[in-house]
Amino acid sequence: MTAPRILCLTGGIGGAKLARGLMATMPPEDLAFAVNTGDDFTHLGMEVWPDFDTLVYTLAGLANPVLGWGRKDETWAFHEELGRLGGPDWFRLGDRDLALHAMRTQRLREGQPRGTIAQAIVEAFGLRCAIWRAARGELATRVVTAEGELAFQEYFVARQAKPVLTNVRFAPQGAPGPEPDLAACLAENTALEGVIIAPSNPVLSIAPILAVDGLRAMIGACPAPVIVVSPIVGGESIKGPTAKIFAELGREISPVTVAREYKDMIDGIVIDPVDRELAGMIEDMGLACHIAPIVMQDDADKEAVARECLSFIDDLSARKKAP
Amino acid sequence: MTAPRILCLTGGIGGAKLARGLMATMPPEDLAFAVNTGDDFTHLGMEVWPDFDTLVYTLAGLANPVLGWGRKDETWAFHEELGRLGGPDWFRLGDRDLALHAMRTQRLREGQPRGTIAQAIVEAFGLRCAIWRAARGELATRVVTAEGELAFQEYFVARQAKPVLTNVRFAPQGAPGPEPDLAACLAENTALEGVIIAPSNPVLSIAPILAVDGLRAMIGACPAPVIVVSPIVGGESIKGPTAKIFAELGREISPVTVAREYKDMIDGIVIDPVDRELAGMIEDMGLACHIAPIVMQDDADKEAVARECLSFIDDLSARKKAP
Repeated sequence: MTAPRILCLTGGIGGAKLARGLMATMPPEDLAFAVNTGDDFTHLGMEVWPDFDTLVYTLAGLANPVLGWGRKDETWAFHEELGRLGGPDWFRLGDRDLALHAMRTQRLREGQPRGTIAQAIVEAFGLRCAIWRAARGELATRVVTAEGELAFQEYFVARQAKPVLTNVRFAPQGAPGPEPDLAACLAENTALEGVIIAPSNPVLSIAPILAVDGLRAMIGACPAPVIVVSPIVGGESIKGPTAKIFAELGREISPVTVAREYKDMIDGIVIDPVDRELAGMIEDMGLACHIAPIVMQDDADKEAVARECLSFIDDLSARKKAP
Repeated sequence: MTAPRILCLTGGIGGAKLARGLMATMPPEDLAFAVNTGDDFTHLGMEVWPDFDTLVYTLAGLANPVLGWGRKDETWAFHEELGRLGGPDWFRLGDRDLALHAMRTQRLREGQPRGTIAQAIVEAFGLRCAIWRAARGELATRVVTAEGELAFQEYFVARQAKPVLTNVRFAPQGAPGPEPDLAACLAENTALEGVIIAPSNPVLSIAPILAVDGLRAMIGACPAPVIVVSPIVGGESIKGPTAKIFAELGREISPVTVAREYKDMIDGIVIDPVDRELAGMIEDMGLACHIAPIVMQDDADKEAVARECLSFIDDLSARKKAP
């Protein structure tokens, strides 16, 4: 059992960028990730973990740079033929990506726990950081929309996040609570220096992590500083439908909304210089505010944001220790 | 509902050669095939029908000419990656082939009967002949060997048919009896002019067809002539382990053994000129014997054997009608 120094909560593509920056900045053994499991679903009989796999592919240097999801140098013979045969091809599965789903599902069929399988995948891709599924069992995100309740992938992929979102709910199944290693990392790990909530969608990617029974309170009670990187910059989402969803929920599209979302469990938030004038409002909520560029385009950006996060955590630790 | 003129019982690669010859010789609408389902199994959660698919690919002109099974112009990204991930890669699944298994399994999951799915596959590949699964439900071949009982693919692919075979047994599941269209073709189809048992392995490929509840008797009672093409030529199998298995079962490796196997249900057998001297023994069993080259290498051979079969059926019909 490793005792990571930094734990990062993350969803898919956006969070994986920061994850890659962290990996470039510190020894992988010091890093752990808790990944959203709300997007997971069964497709063509195979269990697919989109956010987990995106993180694995990204950290292994195998992510598809064009699509953002899936593998680079991927082939699509299966997908093309499935479409030709009239099969369900709305969710694209590349030939190599499919092998991971098949391997995972085979292990599930053999009775292996999801946490064990996750570990096997991390090892198969040669990664030395810890990547934990946030939920020990399953926890499916259900999206309540103006057109009725939809399964997550139905909403996000098949309907391209177009239906107006009015609420999300989470359907846990199987073993309750967080992955045991994740719980131990938060409860007993005196090496833990900080927790970073990646700039992932608070409603669709981070909320399902925090919905895992007991996890939000565990993070809130963690002695190490907890920070979030704002997924909102200058009134827009850095990536994906965060802004659209905030608007649909009647929330202001602002880092202040993000700070409020996590207020009970964080010590501070990283916001972009364009949102500099909001720092006062955030500090009035009793939270620290760190101002740094947080839009990540290339690897240098990712590493820079990672360094800003680590530096902010150091500052917060120093402040906590100060009399 | 078509009323085929010729019905052919077939297993995998060997039978598919004759099937291709028949397709080249007569209108596809006049042809029906009853395919062995004993090799079918579930792999990686997907239902695989090896003989059915081999026949479909062969008749669609998509069969892999090098491997004999699977598709031509196939890619193997899934298989390679599955092996790299430590998944079960003993049964090779090509990327395009996999799409057919996924489509089929998805339809099974939706509750479609296997016969309906078979029809959808035949149509998806643009075929105009009928291809019926012999069994309406499932009927798994279990191979009893000196090393214990093995599932068919475990024996045939994983163990490469090496264990000494002492018996086969069949485990039917689900709906009993033959596919309804197959039963109707034999019972009510006055258009039926002949039944051909392809030169497939009598023990591994044809026996599971004849083990389908009621089917052997239906074929025996069919008014049209029933013939078999010997899978044994000059004391050897044309293809696969037929000779090895005959030896293990203590049977003579000879067309006479083949004739004896089917004696209760056939009118005649096609044997190769090299086995000419056995014709008398066969005729002494009350069966007609047609002598013609039956080793099929190229398309011309396949067509020639098909024509010999049709000509033999014509002869037998004429003899039946004669006073």
